[in-house]
Amino acid sequence: MPHRHRLDHAPFTVQPGQRVRLKDYDSRETAGFKNKSEAKKALLEDVSLLAEMQQLLWAAKEYSLLIVFQALDAAGKDGAIRHVMSGVNPQGVDVYSFKAPTEEERLHHFLWRPAKVMPARGRIAIFNRSYYEEVLVVRVHPEWLERQWVPPRYRGGHYEELWPERFEEINAFERLMSENGVAILKFFLNVSKAEQRERFLERVTDPEKHWKYSAADLRERGYWDMYQAAYEDMLSHTSTKHAPWHVIPADRKWFTRACVADIIAAKIESLDLSYPTVSEEEHSAIEAARRQLEAESD
Amino acid sequence: MPHRHRLDHAPFTVQPGQRVRLKDYDSRETAGFKNKSEAKKALLEDVSLLAEMQQLLWAAKEYSLLIVFQALDAAGKDGAIRHVMSGVNPQGVDVYSFKAPTEEERLHHFLWRPAKVMPARGRIAIFNRSYYEEVLVVRVHPEWLERQWVPPRYRGGHYEELWPERFEEINAFERLMSENGVAILKFFLNVSKAEQRERFLERVTDPEKHWKYSAADLRERGYWDMYQAAYEDMLSHTSTKHAPWHVIPADRKWFTRACVADIIAAKIESLDLSYPTVSEEEHSAIEAARRQLEAESD
Repeated sequence: MPHRHRLDHAPFTVQPGQRVRLKDYDSRETAGFKNKSEAKKALLEDVSLLAEMQQLLWAAKEYSLLIVFQALDAAGKDGAIRHVMSGVNPQGVDVYSFKAPTEEERLHHFLWRPAKVMPARGRIAIFNRSYYEEVLVVRVHPEWLERQWVPPRYRGGHYEELWPERFEEINAFERLMSENGVAILKFFLNVSKAEQRERFLERVTDPEKHWKYSAADLRERGYWDMYQAAYEDMLSHTSTKHAPWHVIPADRKWFTRACVADIIAAKIESLDLSYPTVSEEEHSAIEAARRQLEAESD
Repeated sequence: MPHRHRLDHAPFTVQPGQRVRLKDYDSRETAGFKNKSEAKKALLEDVSLLAEMQQLLWAAKEYSLLIVFQALDAAGKDGAIRHVMSGVNPQGVDVYSFKAPTEEERLHHFLWRPAKVMPARGRIAIFNRSYYEEVLVVRVHPEWLERQWVPPRYRGGHYEELWPERFEEINAFERLMSENGVAILKFFLNVSKAEQRERFLERVTDPEKHWKYSAADLRERGYWDMYQAAYEDMLSHTSTKHAPWHVIPADRKWFTRACVADIIAAKIESLDLSYPTVSEEEHSAIEAARRQLEAESD
């Protein structure tokens, strides 16, 4: 499976311990691609490569792949998932959307929810939003913690100690998963405030897109700076060697998609998988089967 | 969404009450397609139509779609699922493979398993094998019933009354689901014994395909006639107006795929879906949002 990596992934990868400042990241970056049509061509190549590799991942049963997408509204998560995974056999992929938790979920630890749907060996799971919402939307709206039965020491407004603890719990959880064969990739789609405005305007201007509009979109936009701070803290504390965060420029959808596809394809390649080998004994059984089939008269 | 249906689906659709004899069905049939490349072109058109329609199904939230695939080994279920669903957003599709039931599943009624994974409104579920195995593989190997805690009247070899009862239970279950918004399509991929032999021979001859070979393949082939009889009885008793069976010629993979895609696309079209409309009140909120976004200074 020859594959020429078109992009240098380093500029998009958060190093463990790195202190992330989002203003250092250019959301209009198109590194390595001259134009849209070049990026689209690369995306198509990666999509067909991913389709092949997912079959190999499935056959080898050595690893599974967890892909986490986080972003503010209208950053293009849904479109990225649709385009990047379009060639992959739906039998091997599960997409989970982390919407507002149910009461049962809130009565559990916040990692109970992802633990139940981690990908089995050979499979790909995509989280469209994830357990990271617990240090993002919940951090911006800490009053939601009051409905989460958090330990008593965190109740009544004493939240500040909770976030570092959650970062550590997430890191421990991901390390455990990773050591047991779950390869983890995390993408933050970094859209600018101006571009989000354009995309919201499109939703409220085009009558065909009105059904997509939710009052929550604009309300959360009002917390822009708090979200940026929450994302920066999350990126700075939960990017590890085994589960790195990538900050993907998201003002140009065609770049976002090509970049995400390239990183996923490179990750599966790096697992160095091969199709299962057949034992001596199985080989004899296969030979016997061949002789039996050839001898059939019909 | 204009769509010219290329195929007449009637010859492949089992009518309610029809007594099916599989020898009346030609597994090499290619009705309506002159050749492979014509069928491939039609498949591509249907795949892109399906992608559009799945978005509409998702947006409308009126129906969900359950697609059941049943067939003997090597009839092409996996390939059909991969090709037909390749363009569809994986966020809206779940594929369930019904492998041998666990002990917990055997301790429940056999419809507990599908009931838990029926598609939610707006979603597509594909069953790769299904609860129909309970009147197929279990009928061919009735000794498996002894591990299923069936009612006492059926134990110790008194199985013959069980199959009509299971047909009725399935029909009642599907009617219930259908009346609550689950559109149901069922496909039996009808491969001939000679073609299955060719495909098995390929698996045991090509070393690249050895890892796919399972000793169970050839063992079940030994029960060919019992399987044909079980399929005929199932098709004759569980094809209903709300959940019809289709017998799809499966000796030519390109025809199988084009035919299945065409029937699925026609089914979603027949639901006559439309994008949700926006209420007067929502419309005012959208207008207010537009003004607010336009007034932003950044």
